[in-house]
Amino acid sequence: MIRLQHIVFAVGLVLSVGADYDPNWDSLDSRPLPQWYDDAKVGIFIHWGVFSVPSFGSEWFWEYWQGQKLPQFVSFMEQNYRPGFTYADFAAQFTAEFYDPDQWADIFKAAGARYIVLTTKHHEGFTNWPSNHSWNWNSMDLGPKRDLVGDLAAAIRSKAPDVHFGLYHSLFEWFNPIYNQDKDNNFKTSDFVTGKTMPELYELVNNYEPEVIWSDGDAGPDWYWNSTVFLAWLFNESPVKETVVVNDRWGDGISCHHGSYYTCADRYSPGVLQPHKWENCFTLDKASWGYRRNAPAGDYLTIHDVLTQLASTVSCGGNVLINVGPTHDGMIPPIMEERLRQLGSWLDVNGAGIYGSRPWKVQNDTVTHGIWYTANHDLTYAIVLQWPKHNTLTLGSVKPSDQTTIKMLGFDGELKFTPLTQGMNVTFPDLSSVTSEWAWVLEMAGVTPS
Amino acid sequence: MIRLQHIVFAVGLVLSVGADYDPNWDSLDSRPLPQWYDDAKVGIFIHWGVFSVPSFGSEWFWEYWQGQKLPQFVSFMEQNYRPGFTYADFAAQFTAEFYDPDQWADIFKAAGARYIVLTTKHHEGFTNWPSNHSWNWNSMDLGPKRDLVGDLAAAIRSKAPDVHFGLYHSLFEWFNPIYNQDKDNNFKTSDFVTGKTMPELYELVNNYEPEVIWSDGDAGPDWYWNSTVFLAWLFNESPVKETVVVNDRWGDGISCHHGSYYTCADRYSPGVLQPHKWENCFTLDKASWGYRRNAPAGDYLTIHDVLTQLASTVSCGGNVLINVGPTHDGMIPPIMEERLRQLGSWLDVNGAGIYGSRPWKVQNDTVTHGIWYTANHDLTYAIVLQWPKHNTLTLGSVKPSDQTTIKMLGFDGELKFTPLTQGMNVTFPDLSSVTSEWAWVLEMAGVTPS
Amino acid sequence: MIRLQHIVFAVGLVLSVGADYDPNWDSLDSRPLPQWYDDAKVGIFIHWGVFSVPSFGSEWFWEYWQGQKLPQFVSFMEQNYRPGFTYADFAAQFTAEFYDPDQWADIFKAAGARYIVLTTKHHEGFTNWPSNHSWNWNSMDLGPKRDLVGDLAAAIRSKAPDVHFGLYHSLFEWFNPIYNQDKDNNFKTSDFVTGKTMPELYELVNNYEPEVIWSDGDAGPDWYWNSTVFLAWLFNESPVKETVVVNDRWGDGISCHHGSYYTCADRYSPGVLQPHKWENCFTLDKASWGYRRNAPAGDYLTIHDVLTQLASTVSCGGNVLINVGPTHDGMIPPIMEERLRQLGSWLDVNGAGIYGSRPWKVQNDTVTHGIWYTANHDLTYAIVLQWPKHNTLTLGSVKPSDQTTIKMLGFDGELKFTPLTQGMNVTFPDLSSVTSEWAWVLEMAGVTPS
Amino acid sequence: MIRLQHIVFAVGLVLSVGADYDPNWDSLDSRPLPQWYDDAKVGIFIHWGVFSVPSFGSEWFWEYWQGQKLPQFVSFMEQNYRPGFTYADFAAQFTAEFYDPDQWADIFKAAGARYIVLTTKHHEGFTNWPSNHSWNWNSMDLGPKRDLVGDLAAAIRSKAPDVHFGLYHSLFEWFNPIYNQDKDNNFKTSDFVTGKTMPELYELVNNYEPEVIWSDGDAGPDWYWNSTVFLAWLFNESPVKETVVVNDRWGDGISCHHGSYYTCADRYSPGVLQPHKWENCFTLDKASWGYRRNAPAGDYLTIHDVLTQLASTVSCGGNVLINVGPTHDGMIPPIMEERLRQLGSWLDVNGAGIYGSRPWKVQNDTVTHGIWYTANHDLTYAIVLQWPKHNTLTLGSVKPSDQTTIKMLGFDGELKFTPLTQGMNVTFPDLSSVTSEWAWVLEMAGVTPS
Repeated sequence: MIRLQHIVFAVGLVLSVGADYDPNWDSLDSRPLPQWYDDAKVGIFIHWGVFSVPSFGSEWFWEYWQGQKLPQFVSFMEQNYRPGFTYADFAAQFTAEFYDPDQWADIFKAAGARYIVLTTKHHEGFTNWPSNHSWNWNSMDLGPKRDLVGDLAAAIRSKAPDVHFGLYHSLFEWFNPIYNQDKDNNFKTSDFVTGKTMPELYELVNNYEPEVIWSDGDAGPDWYWNSTVFLAWLFNESPVKETVVVNDRWGDGISCHHGSYYTCADRYSPGVLQPHKWENCFTLDKASWGYRRNAPAGDYLTIHDVLTQLASTVSCGGNVLINVGPTHDGMIPPIMEERLRQLGSWLDVNGAGIYGSRPWKVQNDTVTHGIWYTANHDLTYAIVLQWPKHNTLTLGSVKPSDQTTIKMLGFDGELKFTPLTQGMNVTFPDLSSVTSEWAWVLEMAGVTPS
Repeated sequence: MIRLQHIVFAVGLVLSVGADYDPNWDSLDSRPLPQWYDDAKVGIFIHWGVFSVPSFGSEWFWEYWQGQKLPQFVSFMEQNYRPGFTYADFAAQFTAEFYDPDQWADIFKAAGARYIVLTTKHHEGFTNWPSNHSWNWNSMDLGPKRDLVGDLAAAIRSKAPDVHFGLYHSLFEWFNPIYNQDKDNNFKTSDFVTGKTMPELYELVNNYEPEVIWSDGDAGPDWYWNSTVFLAWLFNESPVKETVVVNDRWGDGISCHHGSYYTCADRYSPGVLQPHKWENCFTLDKASWGYRRNAPAGDYLTIHDVLTQLASTVSCGGNVLINVGPTHDGMIPPIMEERLRQLGSWLDVNGAGIYGSRPWKVQNDTVTHGIWYTANHDLTYAIVLQWPKHNTLTLGSVKPSDQTTIKMLGFDGELKFTPLTQGMNVTFPDLSSVTSEWAWVLEMAGVTPS
Repeated sequence: MIRLQHIVFAVGLVLSVGADYDPNWDSLDSRPLPQWYDDAKVGIFIHWGVFSVPSFGSEWFWEYWQGQKLPQFVSFMEQNYRPGFTYADFAAQFTAEFYDPDQWADIFKAAGARYIVLTTKHHEGFTNWPSNHSWNWNSMDLGPKRDLVGDLAAAIRSKAPDVHFGLYHSLFEWFNPIYNQDKDNNFKTSDFVTGKTMPELYELVNNYEPEVIWSDGDAGPDWYWNSTVFLAWLFNESPVKETVVVNDRWGDGISCHHGSYYTCADRYSPGVLQPHKWENCFTLDKASWGYRRNAPAGDYLTIHDVLTQLASTVSCGGNVLINVGPTHDGMIPPIMEERLRQLGSWLDVNGAGIYGSRPWKVQNDTVTHGIWYTANHDLTYAIVLQWPKHNTLTLGSVKPSDQTTIKMLGFDGELKFTPLTQGMNVTFPDLSSVTSEWAWVLEMAGVTPS
Repeated sequence: MIRLQHIVFAVGLVLSVGADYDPNWDSLDSRPLPQWYDDAKVGIFIHWGVFSVPSFGSEWFWEYWQGQKLPQFVSFMEQNYRPGFTYADFAAQFTAEFYDPDQWADIFKAAGARYIVLTTKHHEGFTNWPSNHSWNWNSMDLGPKRDLVGDLAAAIRSKAPDVHFGLYHSLFEWFNPIYNQDKDNNFKTSDFVTGKTMPELYELVNNYEPEVIWSDGDAGPDWYWNSTVFLAWLFNESPVKETVVVNDRWGDGISCHHGSYYTCADRYSPGVLQPHKWENCFTLDKASWGYRRNAPAGDYLTIHDVLTQLASTVSCGGNVLINVGPTHDGMIPPIMEERLRQLGSWLDVNGAGIYGSRPWKVQNDTVTHGIWYTANHDLTYAIVLQWPKHNTLTLGSVKPSDQTTIKMLGFDGELKFTPLTQGMNVTFPDLSSVTSEWAWVLEMAGVTPS
């Protein structure tokens, strides 16, 4: 009864205020992407939850252990915990005693990130904020005894105001009996959606005003999740209606077809220009989004790996969302922090080719491997992942003109170039005289695709 | 939506099957009390939950600590736990490793109990069964990893089939945000009732088929709890419709006015005959219903205390519901077990004056203190709490006749008596020749009130 | 080097001060038993240690689990603890938060005890005082963070000054590698004795001035333990030299042959008069000296059991040392407290036949079972464990005279008696007129053995 | 007694076998340094112990918390642990579940280390091996339940046979009452040395055959520690007498004066050639030797920092001992592992200037800052920490000759050079054509100091 009243009330608001978007995909898709998101390019993803307590194997620990019963997870529990220890028992050990949101904000800012996306609730269902709809399974009622989401929101807005604050939220929950009951009913019932998912999403938006909603766990039809009604409210009425962007995981078959931007698939990195704004999410620990205590150094991406992803993604019209996994006690592990700070130092020099850029007419060079192009107003940028042999780079896709000038970001002075039948050769300076350590960006004026 | 369908469906069933009772108190009150309950006289109450982990002060630990902030509870936490430790954190320590329901059944049977009432959920909201509506705040998802309710139901039915299985359930929950939201709305919303309380009650009845439902925590109007709809279903349609009895705590103002039997108030023991079936609930630990680790021996009722309660209660038309508080590891503390077994040994001898009895025309004797009367068919019983001086007991309220014979349960042979102007003197046998150790029951034939 | 100096110094003191006793058994055995001990009759034994944390099975938990590998102990650990959990890991959970020595003193006093014996160190080696010789394996360095021994000593002396303070100490330690090395050397080395056992004993005596030293764990020859040197110091020089008594467990073959009093064997209760002072140690939990969380009520001695032990023991010249096992959090379990208080209430009435008594010429009656005699100056006491049928007790071993008077403690007035050819019949009063609930003591003047 | 026998026995052995060294510093100092140590140059230090459980602040956690009572340590405990939690209580949480000595061996080998030094016992006294002399305060009896030292010894010898296995051992223990008693006696007693320190050292040598003994915690006179007796045994009789090296911390005033090599002071890095072999110990976490959970990335040395230490140290005749702090669960943190692997990759290219090298006649260049020289047979090496501007490096301290050839390790082909009045200019190749990423090593033939 009550909930129906809520919905009626919301619809009432929609009608009275004058909604722009209807709760269907055609209408919702007609909303222009807020500019800030396309300009941002670099975001940071943060996976934090009860899975950060065992911090073994994956943030899918619970499902792998008790759903799929993968041997290494079953064995890990048998070796290290008493029989009968449950996943929920872990929550009391989620202590977060070193959680310093100001320090996190400082790191994200130093990384050159323009937005962040924090898990508010992963498929485990544990909410990192004191949700009214997840009593005793949230970060205030047990474990941290703290509003992890709210505290980060405040820190970001205070210490890193140029960083947009976004939130991840899983629609489904592996082991929630109400969800599983709906599922067993072939989604003909929707107690879980009306009693949990939707109230949570409204709570998140109203309390924390996220500018990104990164929906996940859309295991069910979109008519079950009733996502379009929420999105219509979000775009028409919510406190973030002007600036919010959402991804594309809102129901079976929706991903890669609807939403402010597309994520399409896990580790989606198409390598060619996309017709719709998209995001390349990847994680510094190659094997997990959540922290793994036993990850060796070799499991982490190098800064070169990160820049390779960044270059190809931005060139193809995407943003990167680079994942870190904090520890149960609230630290961003130093090796992750270091990668972020390396990225930030690179962006300090080379940001002109990234932030606010747009895809160029060509994405990657036709002749030399490892060259990705972007454009920014009249300038064309080539991101060069490998320093060329003999300091001579062949750009097969760029045609110089009389007005052409070429600079390398972080190097004073112009670079010489020699037109070729197809493209040109650019003479690189002495490596010891340039600022960047890992990838180099050429800023070219007066060039066209060859 | 779904839940409304449920209700419609339930109403539909009611109509189609031919309901006897309407969802209003007049109709519900017209249902006769199932005979077994009035005959039973002796029940055992079991308070078990997360409060059994701190097992300090009271089963109201959470409320006293964080609601009322009573100094001894606040101080206990400060002295013994890390700052930031939450009540929900206790649940992981609710291990129940020694919980042996067969052993419990054996104790309850040996105690002479004819029914038991187990807390399925106290005001803390933790469910001792794997409720679909209390995810990660129940005994399967954390702590015991076990269906505490179901396992006891099976044991009672297998090992103690003469003991009726009953369940306690708290309507409200101190800290449930949905309840508190409803309350803040002056109960104009009822999300908590439709989303949690009622689904739980249906689950309990359908899964465990309790023959007693001991409702508690009725902090709110009965129209908020919508209790009558549930009770109509319970009495008309449920699997226990024939035998179930319910107490009287179903909403503000209901207690002591409606229900199969009345409990009226805490530690209710009126001392005079009641017009309606009632129950005297009391706890072996005088200071708490939940186990207290630091209770000294003097805080426990003696067997004499227990028999005193039993005598006055049965005499006045009530049942006793004697409470024990198991430990977090699943034991009934030995001093409680001993009291129960003492009671059982007494009932083995004296049960004829208790089980199946009815109030006599007089309850307690007008001349001698500590004498309570019951009746069973043609026989009148006097429960004598203190052995009389010089072995002569004056019964001021009993008039003998020519047919009068007087026996003492547990003693062979008849007792002599001498009629008095008002009542009679009964000559007791030598104490060393009787079986009972504590209270003695006279079985009198052919007597009338004097 | 240092330790040799200590010994020399001790010997020096002995010589200079004028020692009475030499370090050999003949000399030590010549010391008269301090009177207080023979008069005391009733002591309380307290088994408390790290074994009180698992509180499962026995205070021999460690040995049964990892030494003898008894299946129920191995299984208990497998079911309830992570693999790799060690016995020493338990110590951090020995919290003792409810330990209130004043409350213990009150209970012991109320029990009628005239001395207590607390385990300072059981075979596990954990010292309940901050020993310099058990670093990080004592109650100050981990777990309670408290001098358990010292705090009880202070409380007893302050709150129960009539109760003598005694200490239990285990010579050997199951798993101490230094002991086991000595043992593997056929006790030809004695590093353990010189480095641990003896320094501990000196520490205990000098710090806490115990009036009983209850030595145990004498697994090794007495020349290995070098016990006689310690005892000579104890009797000649120590601060308790006047009043201290020691038991008999000081080396292989010593028990039952040397010491202030004998304990001879576990659960030693010979049932006949002993030529040497002895002690009957028994435990309220029939199956364990340490607390067992899962002990049912039936595993505890009844007060009748306790009085039966007391009667036969005192009659045969022994003292009783009645054991309780406190919990890991510092409570004396209520069922144990109750037994102690029942005993105390009995002694309040019947103490004249116990305290300060001496064996009579006959111990138990030749005709009636369950009668034990004691003497106190001119009076003879018969402790009657069962109330006689028809209130007539036949005493086959007592011959009345013209001067004979017979009273029952707790009953006003004299009892009638009838001389028999062999002994006499005593007429008991009405049971309802006597004070004692369980066993009854006849105080007889002017009688002799028949 | 026993211990005296041991000493006599040891002396007996010395005499009978024909000892080379007497237990005095003159004799001990006459022993030549085993060649392997001087050749090794690169060692890894590992600080692991109970301090790795709080892993907060420093491996001096205990002393800072309860000795010096530094506010941030006191506050950390107050905020995160129950009152009364002791340092020893931490040990049960030292789980080491991920400890994989083979993986450690692989990392140390990959780092280019030629020896390692593992803490067997820090000032906290907890032994990482099952010492007979630290019962219940060692890694087998509680926490890891494992011989941490022995398992690493086996792994190193199996997986990294070129890496010498060394052990750190603290002579004193902050809170050991026996040590403190000796200290209070102005070290006139030595119970701690004879009963603990020396037995431990013999155990370590006989069980694990370390080739380095890194003694620490020499808070007391050397005559108290009796170090020379141990060292004479070590050099004359022990199983490692041929190859073992020891540092210089063997008693007050000994450090920097006696021992196989000198460490002199914390973070000792003199910057000039030393007359005696020495070692520069430094830690990757600039603020702590033990792991700190809350260390940010900026607290770790960069690889450039590490190479700077390496260059100056080897040039001045020292070895580096680079510290890592494993976690309580047994991992070498990835950022530390990464530094070690970076070092190893550098040494793979540049090892010729390090391993087996000897100081050159000049240590650092007189003209250009950041140039350190080593020599290896006829070749002279210049370690260049900063790439020279304009690819031209001025070496003020090297005088070329007609035979001079100059190569850069990791670059094919010879470098051109131009003699100067004082020294010469060396023309560097294009940076992009060289292998090393961070510091560059010139290998010069036919040069002399200028």
